[in-house]
Amino acid sequence: MSVKIKGIAASDGIGIAKAYLLVTPDLSFKKVTDADPDLEIERLHQALDASITDFKTIKNRAEGHMDKEVLVIFDAHIALLTDPEMIKQIEQLIQTKKINAEQALKQVTDTFINALEAMKENQYMQERAADVRAVTNRVLSHLLGKKLPDLGGINTPVVLVAHEITPSDTSQMDQRYIKGIVTDLGGRTSHSAIMSRTLEIPAVVGTSDATQKIQNDETVILDGLTGEAISNPTVDEMKDYQRQADDFEVQRAQWAKLVDAPSVSADGKQFEIASNIGTIADMADVLKAGSDAVGLFRSEFLYMDSSNLPTEEEQFNAYKRVVKVMNGKPVVVRTMDIGGDKQLSYLHLPEEMNPFLGYRAIRISLQRQSIFRTQLRALIRASKYGQLRIMFPMIATLEEFRQAKTIFIEERQKLQATDPGIGDDIKLGMMIEVPAAAIFAEGFAKEVDFFSIGTNDLIQYTFAADRGNECVSYLYQPYNPALLKLIKHVIDAAHKEGKIAAMCGEMAGDAIALPLLMGMGLDEYSMSSSSVLRTRSAMRSLNTKKCAQLVDQVLSNALTNEDTIKMVKTFLK
Amino acid sequence: MSVKIKGIAASDGIGIAKAYLLVTPDLSFKKVTDADPDLEIERLHQALDASITDFKTIKNRAEGHMDKEVLVIFDAHIALLTDPEMIKQIEQLIQTKKINAEQALKQVTDTFINALEAMKENQYMQERAADVRAVTNRVLSHLLGKKLPDLGGINTPVVLVAHEITPSDTSQMDQRYIKGIVTDLGGRTSHSAIMSRTLEIPAVVGTSDATQKIQNDETVILDGLTGEAISNPTVDEMKDYQRQADDFEVQRAQWAKLVDAPSVSADGKQFEIASNIGTIADMADVLKAGSDAVGLFRSEFLYMDSSNLPTEEEQFNAYKRVVKVMNGKPVVVRTMDIGGDKQLSYLHLPEEMNPFLGYRAIRISLQRQSIFRTQLRALIRASKYGQLRIMFPMIATLEEFRQAKTIFIEERQKLQATDPGIGDDIKLGMMIEVPAAAIFAEGFAKEVDFFSIGTNDLIQYTFAADRGNECVSYLYQPYNPALLKLIKHVIDAAHKEGKIAAMCGEMAGDAIALPLLMGMGLDEYSMSSSSVLRTRSAMRSLNTKKCAQLVDQVLSNALTNEDTIKMVKTFLK
Repeated sequence: MSVKIKGIAASDGIGIAKAYLLVTPDLSFKKVTDADPDLEIERLHQALDASITDFKTIKNRAEGHMDKEVLVIFDAHIALLTDPEMIKQIEQLIQTKKINAEQALKQVTDTFINALEAMKENQYMQERAADVRAVTNRVLSHLLGKKLPDLGGINTPVVLVAHEITPSDTSQMDQRYIKGIVTDLGGRTSHSAIMSRTLEIPAVVGTSDATQKIQNDETVILDGLTGEAISNPTVDEMKDYQRQADDFEVQRAQWAKLVDAPSVSADGKQFEIASNIGTIADMADVLKAGSDAVGLFRSEFLYMDSSNLPTEEEQFNAYKRVVKVMNGKPVVVRTMDIGGDKQLSYLHLPEEMNPFLGYRAIRISLQRQSIFRTQLRALIRASKYGQLRIMFPMIATLEEFRQAKTIFIEERQKLQATDPGIGDDIKLGMMIEVPAAAIFAEGFAKEVDFFSIGTNDLIQYTFAADRGNECVSYLYQPYNPALLKLIKHVIDAAHKEGKIAAMCGEMAGDAIALPLLMGMGLDEYSMSSSSVLRTRSAMRSLNTKKCAQLVDQVLSNALTNEDTIKMVKTFLK
Repeated sequence: MSVKIKGIAASDGIGIAKAYLLVTPDLSFKKVTDADPDLEIERLHQALDASITDFKTIKNRAEGHMDKEVLVIFDAHIALLTDPEMIKQIEQLIQTKKINAEQALKQVTDTFINALEAMKENQYMQERAADVRAVTNRVLSHLLGKKLPDLGGINTPVVLVAHEITPSDTSQMDQRYIKGIVTDLGGRTSHSAIMSRTLEIPAVVGTSDATQKIQNDETVILDGLTGEAISNPTVDEMKDYQRQADDFEVQRAQWAKLVDAPSVSADGKQFEIASNIGTIADMADVLKAGSDAVGLFRSEFLYMDSSNLPTEEEQFNAYKRVVKVMNGKPVVVRTMDIGGDKQLSYLHLPEEMNPFLGYRAIRISLQRQSIFRTQLRALIRASKYGQLRIMFPMIATLEEFRQAKTIFIEERQKLQATDPGIGDDIKLGMMIEVPAAAIFAEGFAKEVDFFSIGTNDLIQYTFAADRGNECVSYLYQPYNPALLKLIKHVIDAAHKEGKIAAMCGEMAGDAIALPLLMGMGLDEYSMSSSSVLRTRSAMRSLNTKKCAQLVDQVLSNALTNEDTIKMVKTFLK
């Protein structure tokens, strides 16, 4: 019987393939106390050998396309498996207590894990504990004859079904074979969701229990537009979705023709559709999508990819390359947004009860000014090679913006001593992601060059709901009248002062939000490169005057998120 | 030389006394490896005995006025100190390694602590680790001849100087001798601050380094109105503040005369000044202050004081008593606000990355409905004994309010089957503390009976700054135009629908905020009972029309929190 599973639509498209369950099997075992020591020692060594072979295979396969830092982990695993001291302890336990290999292995490795984990403050020891755990599970799986999931080994088309997908999972898989992703956890802004949009893999997230409802090797259909998945579909369902999948491919081909087309509404109003990027590697997708700009360069990735602060020169080179590739089109760089869920061990930030409400982004930059000044200098220097704009994240008060601007001007003056006029045409803006800034946008609009609304954070603060927390994911409500009012207020405030209003959160690339944002007159829409062409296509079919009427209708009548969705869907029909 | 220390004004009044530093002394020690074992074992036993005597004294002193649960801790400490196994291990170490008692003690107790702390998930074991740590410090202090601070032993007037004051500290001290409190950490809404206002002890919090700048036994002056402290004051400073302290006492005596006076402005407009309470014990202060109502009964204390969920009967009795004591005056009960920083082990709530943005308050009540329904039944039944109102915390969307209201109506119908008409006159309101609710107040105003603005949370979410986090305490900005706009919007939205607008956060009792709130027409001001009379006195000197002009002036001209403060101070002069 076919089973329907409801989740959150996270990445467009229809995926159809056999399910691959990314779930650790049950590795519990019986405790035997009258085992044959020779036999158990023999079993132990076979399992150790098989585990070493596994890790070697995984490592070989990964070599070339994975970071060195990840490869080193597999070496550590192999080293652990051949550690004579550990093996000796396990053998002795088997011999003296006549217990089975599973039990002896677990007992010895648990001791290590506990000892390592007792050093709580020590990040390194915690990671080593994770190593021992991984190795233990691997050996146990061989002892018990069970198969651990092996993402890197997938070489036929599958739909991945997982509790949650981590960045390390992503780095192991060969995306050609992943036809869809279904997860128990996550919302539209989780790692799984953002990754699947970037790789253009259809995805449904936050289903709560997909891993329990779907069996390995069952056929699964998932619809990344409605957020539904079907396991073990009927023949009719299969036909229906196959047709939809084909239609989607046709549509995608149509979109591809718009790569050089202007981003313009049906009634001829010009907009800008831009890309969000994290690293220089993302620039290929930006060009492929024909984006009008880079609307958000998340500069913190420069800080997170290395084990110490990036130098001015390293940053300068990164910014310069992006600006040059864009060839005169705007590049908006957001200054360091560290803290919150993005920690840097080498910055030694305080541990916080609520990191999302803590010491992060501009709050750090204004206090640790030398880091901030280095970044600003690199940016000002890179501005010579194209049209670079700077924006500050997490601004809550006017004082913060003024302080950041003053520091920028000081650094520019220093550089102008040897390079007159450098950085004079840099536009300075701010993210609107703290409710206080949105509410008082009229105060900020007089002093900034542009706003960029960061909806992911703005929504989480406006509804007081952590966007990574499943228990409150129902409060991610981009169409709630409270949020729409706030966004309209920001856009109006910017325009009243003749400033640009942009958006660089998930909402900017959302099909339901598009007519509302166009009706409000949002100038720039920055999103995953994979959404640019779809959005440009949709934009060309929408009339801004009719969209403005829709906005009036929604703001006068909608009381809930659902009310808005209904009105927009009727409008789009 | 006198030293000035700047902090946050947390509780009115001037405190002058000798400093008592609540700081653990340095307990580091030299490592001796050729010690005389007999001597060291003798030293160990003397220190153990002295420690036992300490704990017995502390326990005896505490008996009668402290909870049984706290007293049990001291028994646990004494049991640890007489544990033969532990003592044997320490003695053996001294004998075999010839190390000093300090080292042997530390080595043995560290092993215990590590083992206990390795069981990370186990709250009980974590608490036991804390016990061992406390006992170790106590014994070490005797070995080293150093004195541990002893709050319960204070019997002369002092100004407490501490890093932070915990609820357990509070429970030990005799408040008659505490003339003031100065802390390194904390903001206006920290435990130290709220406790000191409740106990009417002048306090300055969040100084960063008071414990480093102030020496034990030095004279300290602290001014709880300006947030300043002076250590080792000059004769002139001493005279000046002594006079101010006398003036403050005179003023306080004046205020006391207003206990039966109406809460009315200079131009005769009637308001309501109410008390916030947590437990029935707070009712004495409510009556002493002559409050017009209980504007916030934090019902979660009923849940936190016990080790399992309070029954309907227990709750009914608590609500009934408060309602009866108020004798017809309104009592607003907030339904359970658990989660965030208020955890209940027996509810088994998930561990969260950002508890303030997580599963809390109404979000829990709507999912764990049996708990919520029990509370509503107790409230409906108690409403027979006076004027009881109910409000729901953390409402973000209209659906949440509607759902809560539906559940309330269902429970009322059930009770009306045997008690016709019961609960028919209960007013149903909601807290305005999530920005989304404040922004869309016009949507909520049609469906609620009243609003109560919870400024502590509203400010933390609006500025995306955890109110317990020192690093971002500068973002607690009650006078920022963004927040003032939001509050005015909420009040206007309520009045447009003929509903009451109340406030029950810290801001309601704030002297600078008062003229602004009166100018906006806020109906009810709910605060610590200790602030009621001061506020009533201030209210009687203010003209609401002039206050409304001040609001206009501030909202048209102020760009920052500081701008507003200046304008209000000029107005109040």
